[in-house]
Amino acid sequence: MTINVSPLTREFVAALDAADPLAPFRDQFHVPEGVIYLDGNSLGALPKATPDRLAQAIRHEWGSALVRSWNTAGWYDMPRRLGDKIARLIGAQPGEVVVADSTSVNLFKVLAAALKLNPGRRVIVSEPDNFPTDLYMAQGLIDLLGNQHELKLVRAEALVEAINDETAAIMLTHVNYRTGYRHDMVAITAHAHARGALVIWDLAHSAGAMPVDLSAANADFAIGCGYKYLNGGPGAPAFVYVAQRHQAGFSQPLSGWMGHAQPFEFDWKYRPAEGIARYLCGTQPVLSMIALESAVDLMLTANLVEIREKSLRMADLFVRLVEQRCAGHGLELVTPREPEKRGSQVCLRHPEGYPIMQALIARGVIGDFRAPDILRFGFTPLYLRYVDMWDAVDILADILNTRAWDQPAFKQRAKVT
Amino acid sequence: MTINVSPLTREFVAALDAADPLAPFRDQFHVPEGVIYLDGNSLGALPKATPDRLAQAIRHEWGSALVRSWNTAGWYDMPRRLGDKIARLIGAQPGEVVVADSTSVNLFKVLAAALKLNPGRRVIVSEPDNFPTDLYMAQGLIDLLGNQHELKLVRAEALVEAINDETAAIMLTHVNYRTGYRHDMVAITAHAHARGALVIWDLAHSAGAMPVDLSAANADFAIGCGYKYLNGGPGAPAFVYVAQRHQAGFSQPLSGWMGHAQPFEFDWKYRPAEGIARYLCGTQPVLSMIALESAVDLMLTANLVEIREKSLRMADLFVRLVEQRCAGHGLELVTPREPEKRGSQVCLRHPEGYPIMQALIARGVIGDFRAPDILRFGFTPLYLRYVDMWDAVDILADILNTRAWDQPAFKQRAKVT
Repeated sequence: MTINVSPLTREFVAALDAADPLAPFRDQFHVPEGVIYLDGNSLGALPKATPDRLAQAIRHEWGSALVRSWNTAGWYDMPRRLGDKIARLIGAQPGEVVVADSTSVNLFKVLAAALKLNPGRRVIVSEPDNFPTDLYMAQGLIDLLGNQHELKLVRAEALVEAINDETAAIMLTHVNYRTGYRHDMVAITAHAHARGALVIWDLAHSAGAMPVDLSAANADFAIGCGYKYLNGGPGAPAFVYVAQRHQAGFSQPLSGWMGHAQPFEFDWKYRPAEGIARYLCGTQPVLSMIALESAVDLMLTANLVEIREKSLRMADLFVRLVEQRCAGHGLELVTPREPEKRGSQVCLRHPEGYPIMQALIARGVIGDFRAPDILRFGFTPLYLRYVDMWDAVDILADILNTRAWDQPAFKQRAKVT
Repeated sequence: MTINVSPLTREFVAALDAADPLAPFRDQFHVPEGVIYLDGNSLGALPKATPDRLAQAIRHEWGSALVRSWNTAGWYDMPRRLGDKIARLIGAQPGEVVVADSTSVNLFKVLAAALKLNPGRRVIVSEPDNFPTDLYMAQGLIDLLGNQHELKLVRAEALVEAINDETAAIMLTHVNYRTGYRHDMVAITAHAHARGALVIWDLAHSAGAMPVDLSAANADFAIGCGYKYLNGGPGAPAFVYVAQRHQAGFSQPLSGWMGHAQPFEFDWKYRPAEGIARYLCGTQPVLSMIALESAVDLMLTANLVEIREKSLRMADLFVRLVEQRCAGHGLELVTPREPEKRGSQVCLRHPEGYPIMQALIARGVIGDFRAPDILRFGFTPLYLRYVDMWDAVDILADILNTRAWDQPAFKQRAKVT
C-alpha cells in the first residue's frame, strides 16, 4: 500500500490505525500518557507482562528457591534457550545463537574468531559511520594483537571495491544507527565470500524491527542488542550468532567457565563446549535475562512481515507529513527513501537539531539526537499508531513555527543524548 | 570470644543469638520457611527492599520515563556510583572501582593491563585450585597473544618461591572457593612487588564477607562478584578495581563505548576516559545493576568487623558440632582452623559428598557440592543465626546415622551443583 491522499488529514491517518492488524499489540505495552515514543530504537518500551514475570522470578525463583533455581527454574539454560528464540527472529538455526554479555563484548569474540579463521589476512573493513563501539572494540583487539591488523574505514558506496584478498573480515551494522541506511546483507555477504573474507553483521537496529534471514544470506557471524526493538529493558544482554560451520574450528578468546564443556567439573584446563555455548563467558545477569525473555516471547507472537510493512508505512507517512507541514525550516531528510535501503527510523538533519529535539521531548515527543546534527525518530510498529505520526509532526511544526526550541534550557547538553 | 562450653547445647547456642548485634539484619532478608541457607557464598539471599526497588525502577524509570532515565534516574552514572559504594567495602578509594560485566570479563581486562605494564616478563603465576574461570580467561588471553606467555600453576605453599623476575603477574583468589583457605593479601602483594610483579586479587569470596583493605595492601588490581556475599541477585554484575596509579598508563583491550572519554560524541576513534571509567566496555544491564545497588546499600549499613567476627564464630561452632555429633562417619575438615587462614565457609571432604549434600538439600539444609568430594557450607552473618548451625548439624548427623543419602535419586548429578 502506498499513501496517495493529498493533503493528508488526521481522519485519513486514523483510518489507517483502524485497519492495522498489529493495533492490538499496543495494549501489551506500557505506553505512558502524553508521550509519543519515537525512541524505541534506543530503548524499547516496557511490555506489560514483564513486571509480573520479573517480580515472580525475584520473589520465588531467587527469594524462595534460591540457588536451586539454576537447575529448577532453568537459569542455567537461559542463554541457549533464549538464543534459540532470538534465532527465530533473525533466520538462524537452533544452536547458532546465545544471549550473553554486551554487544561490544560479543563483537570482540566474533572478530577475534574471524581473524583466527582468516589468518593470512590483515585488513578489517568497516565504515567510519559504523556504530562507534564496534570500531572501538576492533581498535582494542588490533592493539592487543600487536597492531598487525589494519582497520580500514570506507564509506558505504566504496565498500564493495575495498574488499579484496587482504580482507580478513568485514564488520558492518546492517542498519546504520544514525542515518537509517540499510545494507544489502545478501549481496555484501556473497561478494565478501567470493573474495575469501568473512562478514560480521551487527543487527542492533534490525532484530525485531524487520525480517532478517541470516541463513539465506549465508552469514558468518552476527551480534545484536536486546534493549532496542526487542524491548528487553535498559542494558538488556546482547546476542551472538555464529554459523554452525564456523563453530567447531576454534574457541573464542573470552573463554570463561560458562563456555566450558563441563563447567561443574572445575577442571583447571579450558576445554570449549561443543557448539554455540563456547561463545559464553561468565555468569549472566539472570534478572535482566528474564526481562529480555519476557519481551522476546511477546515478539514471537507478532508477524515480522507485518511489522516491516507498518514500519515502512509509518516512516513514509512521517516524511510526507514533515514535507507537508514543516517546509521552509531547513530540515533535510537523511534516510534513504527506497524501502530496501532503510531500516525502521527516519533521520532529519538540522543545524539546531539538539535544541529542537529537546523542545520535542519537553512536549512529549521523544526521539533522540545523534551528533553532530541528526534528529532521529524510530518506528516500533507494535506500540505506535499512525496518528502518533500526525501528532508528532503537528508538535514539530509548532515548535519550528514558534521557534520554541530557541531557549537556553534546550541547548544545554545532557550526558546521554 | 571463644566457645568453651562442652558438650554444646541448643540452649547455649540460642543464647549466642540473643546477644548477637547483627541479629536484626535477618529481618531485612527474605529467608524462606524451612530452609537453612548455607549457600550465600554461591547466591546471596534476597534483601526485602530489592523487589520494591526493582518494581519501582521497572514501572517508573523504564516504563514511564523510558530513555530519559539514562540521565534523570542516574542509569548512566550507575557503574561508577555503585563502584564507589563497593570501594567502601574493600578498602579502595573513590574512583578506583567500577561495576560492569562479569568477573571473567573483568579478569581479562586487568590481566591484559598487567601484562602490558610488565612487558618484558612472560609468566603469569596462579594456583591449580584457583577458581577455574580465572584460569580459563588467562588461557584465552595467552592464546590470543600468540602463546608468548606461560601460565604457571603452583600450590599455595610454593607460591612465594615461584615469584621471580620472570613473573609479570600473580593472579589469586583471596579466599579459595573450594577449601575456604585465605591468602595473606598484604604479604603476597609486598613479596610480588619486591620482585617487580603485579598482583590481581579475585575477591569473589571476600567482598561483603569480611573487611578487605586493598589500599593498605597496596594492591594493584582486583575483581569481584556481585551475587555472592553482596546479595546482588543471580548473575549480578561484577566489579573491577584498578589502583589509581595504574589507571593512566594504558587502556584495557575491551575498549567499548562506555569507556570512551566522550561516548556521545560518536567519534570513530577510541579515546579512553580518564580514570577507572576506561574499564567500562558496553552498556550495562541496568535492572541487574539496580538489584545489586539495593543490596550494597544494605550491606553498607552493617559493620564488616562484626560480620567477620560472627562468621568465624559460626564456622567454629559448626565445626565443633560436626566433631561432636558426626564423628566416625568419615568427614574430613578441609578448611584451615586458624582464623587468619580462612574465609567465611567450612568445607568437609567425604567420598559420598555429592549424595550427602543432596540429602541435606532435600531436608532444607542448602549448601553445595564442589567436585570431586567437597561439601561446602557458607556463612552469611547478616541472615544466619547460631541456632541454624545447630539445626543444620542435627540434620547432617541424622542423614549420616540413617544413611539417608544412600539413594539413587541423590546420586544423579544436576547440571549445576
